[in-house]
Amino acid sequence: MRHDGRRADELRPITIQRPFDSAAPGSVLISAGQTTVLCTASIEESVPPWKKGKEPISGWVTAEYSMLPGSTAPRKARRADGRSTEIQRLIGRSLRSVVDFEALGERTIVIDCDVLRADGGTRTLSITGGFVALCAAIATLPDPLVDRPILKGSIAAISVGVVDGKPVLDLDYHEDSTADVDLNVVMTGVGTYVEVQGTAEGQAFPRGVLEAQLDLAEGGIVALTELQRHELGGSFPGA
Amino acid sequence: MRHDGRRADELRPITIQRPFDSAAPGSVLISAGQTTVLCTASIEESVPPWKKGKEPISGWVTAEYSMLPGSTAPRKARRADGRSTEIQRLIGRSLRSVVDFEALGERTIVIDCDVLRADGGTRTLSITGGFVALCAAIATLPDPLVDRPILKGSIAAISVGVVDGKPVLDLDYHEDSTADVDLNVVMTGVGTYVEVQGTAEGQAFPRGVLEAQLDLAEGGIVALTELQRHELGGSFPGA
Amino acid sequence: MRHDGRRADELRPITIQRPFDSAAPGSVLISAGQTTVLCTASIEESVPPWKKGKEPISGWVTAEYSMLPGSTAPRKARRADGRSTEIQRLIGRSLRSVVDFEALGERTIVIDCDVLRADGGTRTLSITGGFVALCAAIATLPDPLVDRPILKGSIAAISVGVVDGKPVLDLDYHEDSTADVDLNVVMTGVGTYVEVQGTAEGQAFPRGVLEAQLDLAEGGIVALTELQRHELGGSFPGA
Amino acid sequence: MRHDGRRADELRPITIQRPFDSAAPGSVLISAGQTTVLCTASIEESVPPWKKGKEPISGWVTAEYSMLPGSTAPRKARRADGRSTEIQRLIGRSLRSVVDFEALGERTIVIDCDVLRADGGTRTLSITGGFVALCAAIATLPDPLVDRPILKGSIAAISVGVVDGKPVLDLDYHEDSTADVDLNVVMTGVGTYVEVQGTAEGQAFPRGVLEAQLDLAEGGIVALTELQRHELGGSFPGA
Amino acid sequence: MRHDGRRADELRPITIQRPFDSAAPGSVLISAGQTTVLCTASIEESVPPWKKGKEPISGWVTAEYSMLPGSTAPRKARRADGRSTEIQRLIGRSLRSVVDFEALGERTIVIDCDVLRADGGTRTLSITGGFVALCAAIATLPDPLVDRPILKGSIAAISVGVVDGKPVLDLDYHEDSTADVDLNVVMTGVGTYVEVQGTAEGQAFPRGVLEAQLDLAEGGIVALTELQRHELGGSFPGA
Amino acid sequence: MRHDGRRADELRPITIQRPFDSAAPGSVLISAGQTTVLCTASIEESVPPWKKGKEPISGWVTAEYSMLPGSTAPRKARRADGRSTEIQRLIGRSLRSVVDFEALGERTIVIDCDVLRADGGTRTLSITGGFVALCAAIATLPDPLVDRPILKGSIAAISVGVVDGKPVLDLDYHEDSTADVDLNVVMTGVGTYVEVQGTAEGQAFPRGVLEAQLDLAEGGIVALTELQRHELGGSFPGA
Repeated sequence: MRHDGRRADELRPITIQRPFDSAAPGSVLISAGQTTVLCTASIEESVPPWKKGKEPISGWVTAEYSMLPGSTAPRKARRADGRSTEIQRLIGRSLRSVVDFEALGERTIVIDCDVLRADGGTRTLSITGGFVALCAAIATLPDPLVDRPILKGSIAAISVGVVDGKPVLDLDYHEDSTADVDLNVVMTGVGTYVEVQGTAEGQAFPRGVLEAQLDLAEGGIVALTELQRHELGGSFPGA
Repeated sequence: MRHDGRRADELRPITIQRPFDSAAPGSVLISAGQTTVLCTASIEESVPPWKKGKEPISGWVTAEYSMLPGSTAPRKARRADGRSTEIQRLIGRSLRSVVDFEALGERTIVIDCDVLRADGGTRTLSITGGFVALCAAIATLPDPLVDRPILKGSIAAISVGVVDGKPVLDLDYHEDSTADVDLNVVMTGVGTYVEVQGTAEGQAFPRGVLEAQLDLAEGGIVALTELQRHELGGSFPGA
Repeated sequence: MRHDGRRADELRPITIQRPFDSAAPGSVLISAGQTTVLCTASIEESVPPWKKGKEPISGWVTAEYSMLPGSTAPRKARRADGRSTEIQRLIGRSLRSVVDFEALGERTIVIDCDVLRADGGTRTLSITGGFVALCAAIATLPDPLVDRPILKGSIAAISVGVVDGKPVLDLDYHEDSTADVDLNVVMTGVGTYVEVQGTAEGQAFPRGVLEAQLDLAEGGIVALTELQRHELGGSFPGA
Repeated sequence: MRHDGRRADELRPITIQRPFDSAAPGSVLISAGQTTVLCTASIEESVPPWKKGKEPISGWVTAEYSMLPGSTAPRKARRADGRSTEIQRLIGRSLRSVVDFEALGERTIVIDCDVLRADGGTRTLSITGGFVALCAAIATLPDPLVDRPILKGSIAAISVGVVDGKPVLDLDYHEDSTADVDLNVVMTGVGTYVEVQGTAEGQAFPRGVLEAQLDLAEGGIVALTELQRHELGGSFPGA
Repeated sequence: MRHDGRRADELRPITIQRPFDSAAPGSVLISAGQTTVLCTASIEESVPPWKKGKEPISGWVTAEYSMLPGSTAPRKARRADGRSTEIQRLIGRSLRSVVDFEALGERTIVIDCDVLRADGGTRTLSITGGFVALCAAIATLPDPLVDRPILKGSIAAISVGVVDGKPVLDLDYHEDSTADVDLNVVMTGVGTYVEVQGTAEGQAFPRGVLEAQLDLAEGGIVALTELQRHELGGSFPGA
Repeated sequence: MRHDGRRADELRPITIQRPFDSAAPGSVLISAGQTTVLCTASIEESVPPWKKGKEPISGWVTAEYSMLPGSTAPRKARRADGRSTEIQRLIGRSLRSVVDFEALGERTIVIDCDVLRADGGTRTLSITGGFVALCAAIATLPDPLVDRPILKGSIAAISVGVVDGKPVLDLDYHEDSTADVDLNVVMTGVGTYVEVQGTAEGQAFPRGVLEAQLDLAEGGIVALTELQRHELGGSFPGA
């Protein structure tokens, strides 16, 4: 039993509000327990300079991640740091992995993930919610010129870790701060890996512990994918 | 009749959600029509360097203002500009005007105003909502050591302008972008002025037009103060 | 009687040297009492990127404000801060309000206001002197292609405040630092308002006090406009 | 057979020059094929502010990573970017995982990894070489006050990937630029994991492919550890 | 004969206004032909961090150099660049060479050199005028605690160059822009060298040409020192 | 006799490794005693914006200078400072003095000088070694379109100073830190001056001392030029 009564393989309760107060075509307020992220997807009718004029014509997806000052106590100062940069690079890479840039056409979708409340797992929740915002924005686009859908699949992410010597799923801040291992897994809806990022916090861990964590993560991703599919209905890729 | 059916002296519908997803002791999601601002009030048990060790011991209140990228279409890039700096200085000055710093004691309250959706009037709504967040945060503090309340009064703000030659209250973006005059008024709950900032956008305006706008603003402030009093109940100053 | 012997409605003695050591087509060294600002107006044969290629072809006016390190004691460090940014935005807006951008043609005039000595009222003196530099620079331009003068009118600015409970005109630093209200007024030569910026420093003020200050400011603007007209002679708009 | 004749499980030839031109107590020029990194370890008799005065007294290890402009063609501009920040955070975390900070005492060791020539695998070579520089610097320190060695173990890193559908060890730039998966593994000399960072470059990959890559990496780490042990002799932890 | 009628060994006419509008204890407006620099000397009762608490107690002198935007046509953008940094380092070094820091005591004098109009020779005129401002500021200080004067001597600077194949003294911008050699010389009032900075602009120059320029510079320094002595009267070192 | 046994006119032993680990067409590891600099010359097929489209078509040469953190003890923080900027401006000017930009054609050569170990004389060694890297890079270019060689001559640099009252050549850090004068001389292979930068560190120096130092420098440059000629063989200009 975990400190909040969850089983080792149990996600925190997840809620999604969509659309949420925003001027962006895709906007999602997603919460997992006490962690809340506002994900908005904005569409710009241009591409980065290094893409301009390149054949075949194609688009781009990028992400920005930020924690609002009131998301933690004590208050977090408002400035980009190494951690934020690293996280937004992860979010961008993850979301790009399921986008067909030629089908997207010459436009950029920017996913902004602003953490309103941080209680662990903000980067993985940003990916899971960012994907929903991305789908919502894409649903507002005209049909692509090429004969392929813009989205090649779905994407979700979850954290696992080793707490008190036992692998557990979806750590909150309390667990995260004492975990021996911190592993973030980004997977597609069909169960293949997009990113695996594991870090020994205290002590290096053997192969067997890595495998046990990957098993837990796969179960979490199945549940999150189901939730995305339910939320998005006909906008879910391949629906 | 205005483009959205309002009378010249009519505010947009206002909603307040409190507390809203945040780790801060004061948190308010305030909307006026399509404009939405998340105001959080964080308490830090320290003061700026230039206050340290100065007698009598006293605290400080400061504000930060930012527009989330998805708050406008097209998306607003995430960076401090002159406009933001100017607005957060205004918010800070306005909120400080009703705080007794000695009663506050050696701590700093930071009011963060993050605009989720921008449809005109973000700076005045930030002040009106920021005051509610400030009160909520102060309500969590122990009694001051001095025999005075921390808050000396209430504060609210509203914009007025001249649209199609007629003074109107609480402009939305559509009105604001064609207004001849843009006037922001910050007043206390007892009807005195804290800030008056008027700018001729197109053509300089005569004294009479200034007076007519001030009249409209006073009416708006009365309504906003009533709303704050109702929302805060026993936490409203002097309640 | 004020601490320097002036009446409540009396300006400090003003001197103007023109042209002053500079390579710019407009250059003015303006002093009000102990406050001295060097205003230069430079002409660039280009416009900001967001104006380029836009029909109808038109120009732009912008301003920069800075305090030289030796302008105050103790010495002021040389770096842009929020206050400077706010002030230069005010100066730019004020000067733009009397310029016909189509008559100006595809060029930018930059007004640089560098404070050599600061004894209160630097922002308003920058506007009053900046207008003279602007006129001087415009006088060097060829006739506009359109059948309208470049300048639609004149502009001047003055501060008023409440010191020891009494409204007074044109505060010096000594008065400014103890004033209860600080109000800056920017007006045209025909007595209409371009900017009104009032701030309660100590205590919020009632409508009547605002009105009394506006009365004082109007008198000051009349005197400053007369001074500009005398200095500029045939270069004064409409002369 | 790979493009350079290596087997799938074969490292590039590795050379180490030690000490190398430097004023630092630890300095290593390490090459793997055409990739060369200069790793220096400097000792500072102080700790970061957040460590100062904290009991028990302890030290810190941090890393900086940079690519010299001439390390790539075309030349790489000299400035910190998100990628560099992310890499130096990884190097720092990895090296810290084998250091006993209390045994280190109140000092900071900075590992600087400057890439002289980049042909793939710069971040993992920085860790492998950085560990040698760290050991060399620690060998110059007096005995720790506590009855424990400063180093708890050894650390090395290697990249694996999927090229042309086949898992291969230690990718050079040619392979890396066409790889479907890029996986960096940081392990201790006793075969436990410190970091696992895998990214699907083209297409998400199944669990089986992840396992095959981890197998390859383990073999590479064994060889690198042997090389470190041989190079360091008595300075290798536990030697 | 030079383009402005001067002989090869003739300085431009120099004027000094002192004090000039400023709040600093030393302030000088110095002009050489069309080049004008405002030099102010401010006194701070503190020293840089690296001097604090060091025995024997001593002070510091530093300089900042900046060109006002209107000093050139076209207008010069307001930002620090490599050239400014290099020049202010030269000014600082030059002025420090005649100051006895122990006699100065625990204070810092900052010399700000702001170029109002640039027509060649701004860095040397900044040194010559900066020295006068420095003396003026030092004259306001109480007697030093040690039995030595604060100033060990005087300092002045001048440029020489090779124009149309002939060495000439004190180049204006017209000459400077076509000169083959640009040499700046900083010397004491007793004829010894503090700085020599010579640069071949077009073509490398032989030893004989260097010697001829040094001869010209020595004559210029004698004249400038006389001018400083006359201006400063009893405040000139050793007067 | 000097502290390391050298005569007053004796250079430190110099070694050159070429090419050195780098992806750049020119790369040189040059050492003078304990000072070591890696000089790489990269070729970019473009020119700075202010050169684009200007007739006649011509190229550019620029330099960057940086000290690696481990080049000094204690470790030098990694950031641009005034000193670095000044040095890289000197290196760039010096190398440009022997390049025919029209013969170079529309390309930029960037010389990066990264100091691996600093024991005095890093800026002059950067010039001497940078010239060798520049020649090596130019040797990889196709024949120029104009009928002139790209290099007009050779360039080398050396420091001289006054230590214990005696002029000496090629100061190491120990000598440099106690020298009364620090003079850097950049000369061509035919004995003409490109740069002379002399600074009195302690006390201003008379003309005779300047002359004695220039004599020493000329001898040093002859030896360095011979070394460059030997190293470069047929790539030396005019060989």
